Amino acid sequence: MSRQIVLVDCPDSVGLIHRITGVLGDRRLNIETNQEFVDTATRHFFFRAEVVPADGAVAAAALRADLERVLPAGATVRVTAVDRRPMVVCVTREPHCVGELLLLDAVGELPGRIVGVVGNHDLLRPLVERFGIPFTHVPHQRLDRVPSDGLDRGAHERALAAAIDAHAPAVIVLARYMRVLSPDFVSRYAGRMINIHHSFLPAFAGAAPYRQAFDRGVKLIGATAHFVTAELDDGPIIAQDVTPVDHADTPERMAQAGSDVEKLVLARAVRLVLEDRVFVHGRRTVVMR
Amino acid sequence: MSRQIVLVDCPDSVGLIHRITGVLGDRRLNIETNQEFVDTATRHFFFRAEVVPADGAVAAAALRADLERVLPAGATVRVTAVDRRPMVVCVTREPHCVGELLLLDAVGELPGRIVGVVGNHDLLRPLVERFGIPFTHVPHQRLDRVPSDGLDRGAHERALAAAIDAHAPAVIVLARYMRVLSPDFVSRYAGRMINIHHSFLPAFAGAAPYRQAFDRGVKLIGATAHFVTAELDDGPIIAQDVTPVDHADTPERMAQAGSDVEKLVLARAVRLVLEDRVFVHGRRTVVMR
Amino acid sequence: MSRQIVLVDCPDSVGLIHRITGVLGDRRLNIETNQEFVDTATRHFFFRAEVVPADGAVAAAALRADLERVLPAGATVRVTAVDRRPMVVCVTREPHCVGELLLLDAVGELPGRIVGVVGNHDLLRPLVERFGIPFTHVPHQRLDRVPSDGLDRGAHERALAAAIDAHAPAVIVLARYMRVLSPDFVSRYAGRMINIHHSFLPAFAGAAPYRQAFDRGVKLIGATAHFVTAELDDGPIIAQDVTPVDHADTPERMAQAGSDVEKLVLARAVRLVLEDRVFVHGRRTVVMR
Amino acid sequence: MSRQIVLVDCPDSVGLIHRITGVLGDRRLNIETNQEFVDTATRHFFFRAEVVPADGAVAAAALRADLERVLPAGATVRVTAVDRRPMVVCVTREPHCVGELLLLDAVGELPGRIVGVVGNHDLLRPLVERFGIPFTHVPHQRLDRVPSDGLDRGAHERALAAAIDAHAPAVIVLARYMRVLSPDFVSRYAGRMINIHHSFLPAFAGAAPYRQAFDRGVKLIGATAHFVTAELDDGPIIAQDVTPVDHADTPERMAQAGSDVEKLVLARAVRLVLEDRVFVHGRRTVVMR
Repeated sequence: MSRQIVLVDCPDSVGLIHRITGVLGDRRLNIETNQEFVDTATRHFFFRAEVVPADGAVAAAALRADLERVLPAGATVRVTAVDRRPMVVCVTREPHCVGELLLLDAVGELPGRIVGVVGNHDLLRPLVERFGIPFTHVPHQRLDRVPSDGLDRGAHERALAAAIDAHAPAVIVLARYMRVLSPDFVSRYAGRMINIHHSFLPAFAGAAPYRQAFDRGVKLIGATAHFVTAELDDGPIIAQDVTPVDHADTPERMAQAGSDVEKLVLARAVRLVLEDRVFVHGRRTVVMR
Repeated sequence: MSRQIVLVDCPDSVGLIHRITGVLGDRRLNIETNQEFVDTATRHFFFRAEVVPADGAVAAAALRADLERVLPAGATVRVTAVDRRPMVVCVTREPHCVGELLLLDAVGELPGRIVGVVGNHDLLRPLVERFGIPFTHVPHQRLDRVPSDGLDRGAHERALAAAIDAHAPAVIVLARYMRVLSPDFVSRYAGRMINIHHSFLPAFAGAAPYRQAFDRGVKLIGATAHFVTAELDDGPIIAQDVTPVDHADTPERMAQAGSDVEKLVLARAVRLVLEDRVFVHGRRTVVMR
Repeated sequence: MSRQIVLVDCPDSVGLIHRITGVLGDRRLNIETNQEFVDTATRHFFFRAEVVPADGAVAAAALRADLERVLPAGATVRVTAVDRRPMVVCVTREPHCVGELLLLDAVGELPGRIVGVVGNHDLLRPLVERFGIPFTHVPHQRLDRVPSDGLDRGAHERALAAAIDAHAPAVIVLARYMRVLSPDFVSRYAGRMINIHHSFLPAFAGAAPYRQAFDRGVKLIGATAHFVTAELDDGPIIAQDVTPVDHADTPERMAQAGSDVEKLVLARAVRLVLEDRVFVHGRRTVVMR
Repeated sequence: MSRQIVLVDCPDSVGLIHRITGVLGDRRLNIETNQEFVDTATRHFFFRAEVVPADGAVAAAALRADLERVLPAGATVRVTAVDRRPMVVCVTREPHCVGELLLLDAVGELPGRIVGVVGNHDLLRPLVERFGIPFTHVPHQRLDRVPSDGLDRGAHERALAAAIDAHAPAVIVLARYMRVLSPDFVSRYAGRMINIHHSFLPAFAGAAPYRQAFDRGVKLIGATAHFVTAELDDGPIIAQDVTPVDHADTPERMAQAGSDVEKLVLARAVRLVLEDRVFVHGRRTVVMR
């Protein structure tokens, strides 16, 4: 009945597409679109198809088993239904990224649905609730102020995870969530947590990056959306873009330009992930547009 | 031995990739890269692979016959060797596009080689000869001045075709060639003659387009590279790009910006065609990056 | 006290800046930023400054009079306060452009404030009211269905103007408002009504432009924001941008890409106008970034 | 007679433009275009005008003295003639950047003229001499191989400076010159030596940057043109741009994309500098477009 997405990645070998399309044909699945890519550096094969059954439904588990039977050991096979999967957004104080996602969802331009927003500050609650989405405040302040009162980082992250998991999201988006997360926390959501950060040429570490960019006289301001891994801001890149600035732009206007490009790049990345177009391959992504 | 490119396009049907990869496997051809695309609007299938024989050489004609045997009626199959194919460039007075191609060729960044340049003016001869490339002048002036002397459009186009064909080019590039060509002439080179023209939002017909663009206050100036068909400036588009301008740009600076984007877009299109990455499909192209 | 914007445009002559800055100095106004531009083609001079009084307030009318006294006949002088001026947005069915403006306003990233939205359909009322902004429905259906019932175009436009004018807006934005407006109506809001429309290379007239763009195989999709004049879609351009597409993009994905670029270009244009950075000069604009 | 460029930068104070334009008017100089900018962070004023004398010639030294008389202490005043100033290009092995500049010069699209090319390898001599430009080989090999033979870094740089200075250039361009230069050497050419380097998000130190960019899966590749200062690759930025890449781009194709954007950004920067449009202000530039 409904459209399914078939995702395969495995070491490359001769005849993989021949074998995969053989299985799909045997199961009477029409391939609506399909893309494959071989990373020649690592000889790794990636395949994505959208299929529709000629009759009856797709038995996802059986299809997966059939595919695994013809593929090399170590193949990863996923079969997912095309639908608007649940997503949780984590925020701190900045409204532009979460606002863009809320708006896209509200007007039907997001291939997923926001089921909850979690903030370590309560500031964005009115904006979120305006869209009829539940907002959960998971404060960390006690942690900062009175580290001895028992709400340590672990306790905060457990509360955060509980708030996220209550919505059973398929995808988690850090939309300018400004707390560093522990490797343990990050590993819970491996491959399905997306972050956005500003990017500059050259790069600037530390506080007040737009001030630094201004002082350095950059002519471009950018943004990078990536999967979150234990290495802060260094996970596999999903999307990037830049916008031009010049000497007449104050740090405030540079920050505004940065906000604009951040929200666009994040929205682009979120759409790609929700449509199952992104494979993670080591430190890289393969994006099947 | 050498790498070959296999190109297929045909009406879509079930199992096409399965059949094609079956033939390639039977002939012991390793697929180095391969891309396919189905145009869902017209249910048409496109396939491009780069293959290397596991042993011995590729018998191109036999491979083509094998593929045609398993494909639907009306399939187009091409098997081409990866090499630097000969190209002729046609020019009038403007140096920027032909200069870019000459330079890319000279420094080894063009997947083809310029074997001759033909001009309806003699102005660019020194630039071309500086690169050691033969320049042929095929004037049309007598046509313009004394239409009764027998050098009619047909005679001019016959002379032009002779000058082009003397080099037996695989690809012909109109690099700001400023004469309208007849449908008869164009049809000789169907699918292998590329043109560049400036593009604006909105579009401007007639003379002095940069002056019109200035008068209209456009904020973007663009270029479109396309295959030449009987419809002037309206063949299938291969590549497009734009560059920003503003009120402070004079018509001269707009023309300079236009020259810069034209040469880049043309070079991009020429590379794509020389690497056999472009299928023509009705009025559209399918570009296998 | 508060910051003021001083705008001058007039035929160019020797010493204009000398004279203007003399007046500003006499009135003890500190120039915070100032930009000027001479259109060399028409010898027309444009000047924009942001000034802050060294003491006391700015007497706008007196300042204007002083400036006019030193400027050539026919000079236009405006002195405006920097504040968040009221804006009305007109819509039909598409949410992306108005949604972007509502969101920017809600999060404090718009140098103006939306005081009302007027629609010829009622469809977007929930989205607009979610932001606490009044929505007025001014239907035109009776006009279309029963042209003889007295609600002719003139009556509809009078109702529309009344709905707009009730909010006393400084700026009116047509955010995908899909009715053609009469020259009479347009002239009421000369120089302060902004429209957005999609733009393509080549251009497509008539219905279903994204379908046409798809059929033509364009590689870029764009948007143009412009002041509304009696010539439909042909007023002075404020901002333009494009986004790349390719053969794999369906008409639906092209329309999505178009929506994304439209909302960005419109927001950029609205910001420029609200900050008094745009001069209209014949069919062109001068944009003081 | 001829057009002159007047450049002023000094601490901001009230009435600067009034005073400058007063001097220009007294000397009967018509201002053809003029731009000014105040850096509000440092309260520094920048002014550029192109002027044409109403009669007679411009006495540059006297004009400079008149201007200095009305400006604050510490003002920098330059008066330069608009002409095609001499430029030397330094190269190593890569042809794309020097080739672009040679071509632009050859076709009259460079507001300067290349009077010599100096290489630490001899490889690009044929390309350069094809354009009729003298090529000087200043090898450093003996230095590398036999550091004790007396050709130390200082000796090499003295030879390089001699080769450059023999042409008395106004501007020196490092077009992929791959040797680190000493602060002493760099200071000889302060404010008139331009370098191009690749830029990535994130940045990559060390060898084989395109390989690193590939391994990291970047989606953008960029280039930065900057003035050379004692801090390697960290001088004031003149121009930057990027080009998109994706997972299907090999390191070789990424390097090709990088070459394309490098040559464009370098050419843009060289034009801006040759037209005296760039002020250096601390670590930033002010670019008067």
